[in-house]
Amino acid sequence: MTFQYSLLFEFTKSILIKIGCSEKDADLAADVLLSADLRGVDSHGVARLSGYVRLWEKGRINATPKIKIVHETPSTAVVDGDSGLGLVVAPFAMQVAIEKAKKVGTGWVSVKNSNHYGIAGYHAMMALNHDMIGISLTNASPLVSPTFSKERMLGTNPISVAIPAKAEPPFVADMATTTAANGKLEILQRKELDAPLGWVQDKDGNQTTDANGVKKGGALLPLGGDREHGSHKGYALGAIVDIFSAVLSGANYGPWVPPFVAFLEPDPNPVGEGIGHFLGAMRVDAFRPADEFKSNMDNWIGRFRNAKPIEGQEKVLIPGDPERELEAERKITGIPLIKPVVEDLRLLGKRFEIEFPI
Amino acid sequence: MTFQYSLLFEFTKSILIKIGCSEKDADLAADVLLSADLRGVDSHGVARLSGYVRLWEKGRINATPKIKIVHETPSTAVVDGDSGLGLVVAPFAMQVAIEKAKKVGTGWVSVKNSNHYGIAGYHAMMALNHDMIGISLTNASPLVSPTFSKERMLGTNPISVAIPAKAEPPFVADMATTTAANGKLEILQRKELDAPLGWVQDKDGNQTTDANGVKKGGALLPLGGDREHGSHKGYALGAIVDIFSAVLSGANYGPWVPPFVAFLEPDPNPVGEGIGHFLGAMRVDAFRPADEFKSNMDNWIGRFRNAKPIEGQEKVLIPGDPERELEAERKITGIPLIKPVVEDLRLLGKRFEIEFPI
Repeated sequence: MTFQYSLLFEFTKSILIKIGCSEKDADLAADVLLSADLRGVDSHGVARLSGYVRLWEKGRINATPKIKIVHETPSTAVVDGDSGLGLVVAPFAMQVAIEKAKKVGTGWVSVKNSNHYGIAGYHAMMALNHDMIGISLTNASPLVSPTFSKERMLGTNPISVAIPAKAEPPFVADMATTTAANGKLEILQRKELDAPLGWVQDKDGNQTTDANGVKKGGALLPLGGDREHGSHKGYALGAIVDIFSAVLSGANYGPWVPPFVAFLEPDPNPVGEGIGHFLGAMRVDAFRPADEFKSNMDNWIGRFRNAKPIEGQEKVLIPGDPERELEAERKITGIPLIKPVVEDLRLLGKRFEIEFPI
Repeated sequence: MTFQYSLLFEFTKSILIKIGCSEKDADLAADVLLSADLRGVDSHGVARLSGYVRLWEKGRINATPKIKIVHETPSTAVVDGDSGLGLVVAPFAMQVAIEKAKKVGTGWVSVKNSNHYGIAGYHAMMALNHDMIGISLTNASPLVSPTFSKERMLGTNPISVAIPAKAEPPFVADMATTTAANGKLEILQRKELDAPLGWVQDKDGNQTTDANGVKKGGALLPLGGDREHGSHKGYALGAIVDIFSAVLSGANYGPWVPPFVAFLEPDPNPVGEGIGHFLGAMRVDAFRPADEFKSNMDNWIGRFRNAKPIEGQEKVLIPGDPERELEAERKITGIPLIKPVVEDLRLLGKRFEIEFPI
C-alpha cells in the first residue's frame, strides 16, 4: 500500500501534537521521521511512530523538553536534551554546531539525555545549505557484539557525513557501523529468507544465516563480519561513535544505552543520561574558498562516477545517490508501507481520534 | 634478524641528515618511522626509508621544507607542507590543531603538498598528553577500487582516533579503510600463501585469493569486501578521508594522488599539490571536566574488556591493545627485520657511508 507523503506527514504531526508536542516541534519531528521513509530507510520512519508514543507513555520521552546548552567553548557545546524526542533534540544541537562554525570555523556538539534521532543523514545534511560539511553520529540500543564477544555491547551506531558540491548533488554517506543495518534483516524476516554469513551471530557467537538470530539472543556483526575481514575495524568505528556521542556528553554508553522498545526496561543503574549524539559542522571556507572547494568536489564526484565499472555490475555510485533518487521518486509516487505498519498506524489513529488516510 | 631500537633510530636519523634534513627534523622523522616498527606496522617503518630517499633523489621530497599555515580561522587551518617529509609535516600540522584546541576547544588542520606520513596513529596520539582526543587521516596512492569499479581510485586511506583514559591506557584505533592493509598481503606474498576472499580483486574486478593480485593490475577491496557485506561503507569511509585530506586542503585526490614508489611518475596533470592529511584535536574539557570524562573512559574500557568472550576465542580487545603490548616488548627485545629490508638498509648505509648496525 502506498501513501502520499503529505498525508503521512499530517498524520504524524497530528499524533505528535496529541501527545503534547508544540506545533513547531511536531512539524520538525514529522519532517525528520518522514525523510527516512522518503529516502528508503523504512525501518527509521513512520513505522517507528507508535514506538515513540509508547516511550512517551512510559514517561521516557518528554514531549515538552527544555533543551539547553550546559557547557560550551567557542567551537564546542554539550546539549542536554531533557528527555525530548531525538527528532527534535538533534536538529537543535546541529543548529548550535552551525552557529559556532559561522563564528570560529567549526562547531562540535555532544548531546546527552536524548532519544532515538531518526536517520543520521537528516541532521548532517542540515549543514549543506550553509556551505558546510555536516557530521552526525549517534549511539543506540546494544545489538552488536565486538570482535571475539558473544555479548551485545554496541548499537548499530551510524556515521553520516554530508559534503556540499557545486553543480553536482552533495556527497551524503549515512551508514550503520555494522555489516548490515537491522532494517535489512527485517526485510529478510518478512520474506522468510536466510541472511548471508557475516551479518549475524547466534547467542554462542557462531556465525549464522538465521535472519531471526538477533531476536534469539544473538547479535549483529560489526562492519567486516569476522576478524579476518576486518570486523575489529567495524567494532572500533562503532566504539568511536559511542564515545563521541555519550562519554563526551555524559549520556549512557555501550551496554547501558536504554532500549528503544518500551517493553524493555532501561538499566536500573545507568552510567549517564539517556542516549547520546554527536553533531559537527565545518565551514568549507574555513579551509579554502567555498567555490574552489565545491568545484573540486564536482570534479571528484564526476571522476568517481565515471570509474570503469566491473562488467555486468552497476556503475560506481556516489554515497547518497540511491537515497536521493528514491526521495525524488517517492515524493511523487508516494511511500509504500507494509501491512503491519499500516495496521499499527490505524490503531494509533483510532486511539488519538485522528483518521489514518485511507 | 632483530635489531635494537636505538641502533635503528640512530641509523635512520643519520641517513635523513645525509639527505639534508635538519637535526631536529631527522630526529622527529626517525621517531615517527620507528614507531611503526615498534607497534608492529612493519610495512610503514624503517622498511620504507630507502623509498623516502628515492623520492628525495627524484626531487619529490624537499629535505628543508618551509612548512607554513596558508589559511586559518580560530578552529581551522590549511598547512602547506612544501613537499616535505610527511613524517615532519604531519606533526607540525597536529601541533597547530592542538594549539587551536587550547584556545577555542578544537582544532582542525587540512594539509596539502605533503608526502607519506608514516603511521596515522603517531599523529593522533600526540593529542593524548594534552587531555585531548586526536584524529589523524591521510590519503595515499590509489590501490583500492570502490564498489562496482575495476579501476583503482582510492588509497588505503587510514583513520586513527586516540582517546585518553585515566588509569587505563588510551583507546587508539588506527585502521586502513580496506578489509586488509597492504602490509598483510606482503606477509602472505613472502610466505607464498593465498589471501582470503574479500581482500583483493583481479584486474577485471573478480574476487581473487591471489596475494599478488594488486601487483597484477587488481585492487585492494574496501572494508566490507563486497556489496553484500558492506563494501560501499568502506568505500564511503575511504572517500571521506580523501575529501577531508585533499579536497579541503587543495592536495591531489582520488586517482591523482602521487604514487609512493619513485619509479612511477605522478600524473602530469595534477589536480592539487602533493598528498593530503587531516589532523584534529578536541580538548576533552571543552565538553565536560576532563577527570569525569577519563573516569568514564576507564569504565568503558573495563566493561568492554570484560565482555563475555566467545568460547575458544581471544578476550575482547580495546583498540590499541595489541600495538601497545608489542611496543613494550620490542623496546626491550628489539625490532625484527626481514632479510630484504636488512639488505636494502645495508646498501643505503654503504651509499651514505653510514655503518648499518651488525
